[in-house]
Order: sequence, then C-alpha cells, then structure tokens
Amino acid sequence: MEIIASPAAMQRWSENARRRGETIAFVPTMGFLHEGHLTLMREGRKRATRLASSLFVNPTQFGPNEDFSRYPRNFEGDCELMRTVPVDVLFAPEPDVMFPAGSQTWVEATEVTTGLCGDRRPGHFRGVTTVVAKLFNIVKPHLALFGEKDFQQLRAIQRMVADLNFDLEIVPVATVREADGLAMSSRNAYLTPEERQRALALSRALRAAGECMKRGARIPAQLAGAAQAVLERTPGVEIEYVEAVDAETLRPIDQLDRAVVVAIAARVGKTRLIDNAVLTPASESEKLSLSKESAG
Amino acid sequence: MEIIASPAAMQRWSENARRRGETIAFVPTMGFLHEGHLTLMREGRKRATRLASSLFVNPTQFGPNEDFSRYPRNFEGDCELMRTVPVDVLFAPEPDVMFPAGSQTWVEATEVTTGLCGDRRPGHFRGVTTVVAKLFNIVKPHLALFGEKDFQQLRAIQRMVADLNFDLEIVPVATVREADGLAMSSRNAYLTPEERQRALALSRALRAAGECMKRGARIPAQLAGAAQAVLERTPGVEIEYVEAVDAETLRPIDQLDRAVVVAIAARVGKTRLIDNAVLTPASESEKLSLSKESAG
Repeated sequence: MEIIASPAAMQRWSENARRRGETIAFVPTMGFLHEGHLTLMREGRKRATRLASSLFVNPTQFGPNEDFSRYPRNFEGDCELMRTVPVDVLFAPEPDVMFPAGSQTWVEATEVTTGLCGDRRPGHFRGVTTVVAKLFNIVKPHLALFGEKDFQQLRAIQRMVADLNFDLEIVPVATVREADGLAMSSRNAYLTPEERQRALALSRALRAAGECMKRGARIPAQLAGAAQAVLERTPGVEIEYVEAVDAETLRPIDQLDRAVVVAIAARVGKTRLIDNAVLTPASESEKLSLSKESAG
Repeated sequence: MEIIASPAAMQRWSENARRRGETIAFVPTMGFLHEGHLTLMREGRKRATRLASSLFVNPTQFGPNEDFSRYPRNFEGDCELMRTVPVDVLFAPEPDVMFPAGSQTWVEATEVTTGLCGDRRPGHFRGVTTVVAKLFNIVKPHLALFGEKDFQQLRAIQRMVADLNFDLEIVPVATVREADGLAMSSRNAYLTPEERQRALALSRALRAAGECMKRGARIPAQLAGAAQAVLERTPGVEIEYVEAVDAETLRPIDQLDRAVVVAIAARVGKTRLIDNAVLTPASESEKLSLSKESAG
C-alpha cells in the first residue's frame, strides 16, 4: 500500500491511474477502523480497479466542546487493516496541509443539514462537506463509498455531489452491526462494558419503530414514539433526539406516504451515539395480512 | 465549435480529451462578449491544446434588485466571436439544469469577499464561487483564465481553488481598456454617450492614485483620496466606494509596505461600474529620483 501525504502527489497518482484507464474507488475515513470501514473498502475493491482511502481526523467537523483531541487514533493498526483489503493507496495528510493558515472557503449543503445532528452540532456538516469536497478534488475518484450509519452526512454529501456536479458516484453501504445489534462506530471504544450494554437500547428502539411501521402506523410521530419509549425505559441513556423524517430530504413530514428515516442521537455516559433505520410504509395488502394475523 | 448544453455530455468531452493527453484551457463567461473576453480566450488558446468556454448568465450572483433580467444577451453574436478565436467547445446550459429545484449547496470564500463589492452585493460572491465550482467540475480544465477587472472575483476564485484543492491553475489577465481608458465591460452597453464620457472618471481616478504612489505616498488613504478627488470633480458620477487595500487579502492595511489594489465602484446614471489598479510602492531610490526631479 502506497502512503501519500501531499495533495499534489495524490493528484498525480490519480491522474496517472485515470490516464491508464483505471477506475478509482475511494473510502474517506477518520481512522480507528472497524468492520464498517472495511466493508466499505471491500465493496469499493469490487467496484473499481484501484482502491484509495484517506485517513484524516478533520478538525473542522468537531465543535469547540467535542472530542477532537481525544478522538481515538491508531495509524499503524489502521494501515495493517487496510493492507488486508487490500487498499492500493492511502492519502494521509497533516492537518496544516489540509487547512493551512488563510484557509477560508466553505462548502455547505443547507436544507439537508437542518434538523437532527445539524441543529445540535453547529458547523459540523459544513466541516464535513468542505473536507470531502477537498478530498474529492485531491483523490479524484470515480466512486466514493459512505456508510448509512452517518445518515445525515450521507445525504449532505449526496446533495453536494449533485449540486456541485462532482463527476463521481456516491455508493451508500448499509450500517454494519455487532452480533447484538450495536451499530459499529469508532466512538464505541469510549464505552465501558456497562455502557456498551445500555447502548443496545438504540438498535432496540429502531427495531421497535420497525415493528410499529409493520403494524400499520399512519404518521411518523408513532414511529418516533415507539423508539422513544424503548430509550426512555433504559436507565443511563440520555436522549438527544428521536425523529422520523423524509428519508430523502430529512425534512419533517405529516404522513407515512414515503420512506422515512428514524434517527436517534443519545448519550450513554459521556459518549454521544447515533443510529438510524430507513423504513418504508407497508403496502395496504401487507397491512391487511398483518391485521388478520393479530386478529387470528 | 461544438456547443454542449448538458453537464454530463460536457464531462464526457473533457474526460475524453484528458485521456488523449490534451490540456484544456477554460474561459467562463456570462456572454455579450467584448475584447476583454476575447483576450482571455486568445491567451487560453496559447496555453493549452483545447479551448473551452461557457456562456451562462448566473442568476445566483445577482441580487433581487440587480440587473439579471435585463443583463445584455446575444447568443448568436457571441458564438460568432468565439469561432474567430477559435473556441473548440462551448458549454451553454439552461438555468434549470444548473440550478434545478432542490439545489442547496453553496461554496463561499469568506474573508476575501468581505469589504468592497462583497459588502454592497450580499450573496454575489457566494453565487460566483458556487457557479465557478460547478463549472470547474463540469468542464474539468487544466487552467482557467479570469480578468483582473473583476478583481475581488479573481481573488475569491483563487482562494477557492487553493482552499478546495481544485487541480487547476488560475491565470489572471490584465484588464483590457478602450483607447480612452474605459475598462471593457458588458455593462458599458447600458451607457448613453454622455454617461460614457463621465465613466472615464474611473480610469482617470486610478491614474491619479498611481501618480500619488509615484510621488511617494506613505499610506493607502492617500491613494484612495487622490482617486476620490477626481471622481468628486466629475458631475454625474456617484461614488459607491474608493478603497486602497492589500492586493492579496483585500484587507485594509495601514502602510504602503506591499502591493495594494485601488478599487472603485461608482454609478454613472443607473449603471454600476467597477475598476481597479494594482500599485506597488516605489522603492526608496525611485522616490529619491522623483523628489530630485520635482526639486530641479
């Protein structure tokens, strides 16, 4: 695996690959890799002839009181995991190369970053779309893969790519979970064993919302309510939000006439966790058969 | 000259050219071409093997009370002029292709668009950098040429390119002037013959600032003052601003210890005109020889 620190050298690598007719898949990361990242990388490996990744803990997406300085890091371990995929090239720049003094240009997707995490983490998504725009211009991929775990991030990046005409495809990949349902996240490393157990309430809450949908829920508030009830029953889980919104625009909707995403943010101890599930309304016939079952 | 309206088709054209090893120069325009645009195109023609231009009157860079709807247009005439250069490919999209319903992503260079026109035209430079980012992703040039006449625009685009790691070179080209000094602008078409005469006050004011610099001015306010005096002597010229600021950052400076740009915006009748000159402080020996002359 080639490791490149300079944006200009990375651009040369990609231009050369493109001129040879290669296709480049790209998985940007903040490191401390888990099976979720590796799933993205294996999927990218399948879809292109060259696989690029990046490792950069982006300071501009952390708020002043967030965990930038203590975000978990393990460069050597990450490189070893990438070599198992294998990743062909890793772009790993220094912070002051990505954001040198005088940097002042921001990329912002506006509506899709309103609500959910956007309201609780001011500036977060602006930092995400800015660094991803930079990485796209540096790595020049044909496709880039993002996990559905960070659902609002995925939607913000999809909007940015469409709105700014980036000539690449965004490939969403389903959230990878531990056997017991916990969504994989680098931040899970912060959890004590006891907190780790409590954190299962998030995926349990999403399953409850899914069952509520199957029983024929008519409005999004029913789904959010079902999820919230589960979270509230779990001591030591502090809800930040539980919402069911349009799965495309992330705007509130009144009726379950299209796909919704049920999104949760909650604190378990000092650790902020997020999870989500996309739910599609049951067709009328499905609802009928379900109501027969419960009647029978 | 090939004319392309679809972003995807333009991207294919450029990808094919790049794979053949061609280099692409790009001159974005809002049409109603004059010698300034043609100078940019001829310079681009020299510096690359393929020359692309675009013609798009960008609605997002006009304020609600500005001249978007009456901005001068002459598509056929512009195409004829481009063929004389010759331009190889013209990207000419429809507005709803560039900004379809749901568009919501903005690119903004912040500090460099504070002051000067940035303060008087809220949202203008955000519209400029956003459309130029889109055009760069669609046309995929190796270099793009911009006139120094729109100096704050040039600096905003240079910042955006550096900050977002666009893999291309920005080539600034000196303002092209009429024989009598008037900076060429599509908006000159709005001027009556009498206004056209009054408009010469802008370039005259900049020459006065230049002479003030040669006489050994010590602070930027002296340069702005010399320019302002000329404008104030001309009836029918309404000053919007006259400022002398750091030629790189466009921030105010106290001393003439580096290059400054003297920038003017003024209304002549209903037409808003801008012009500028970059001035470099005279060295001590130059000042000495000048003071000897005036003493002699």
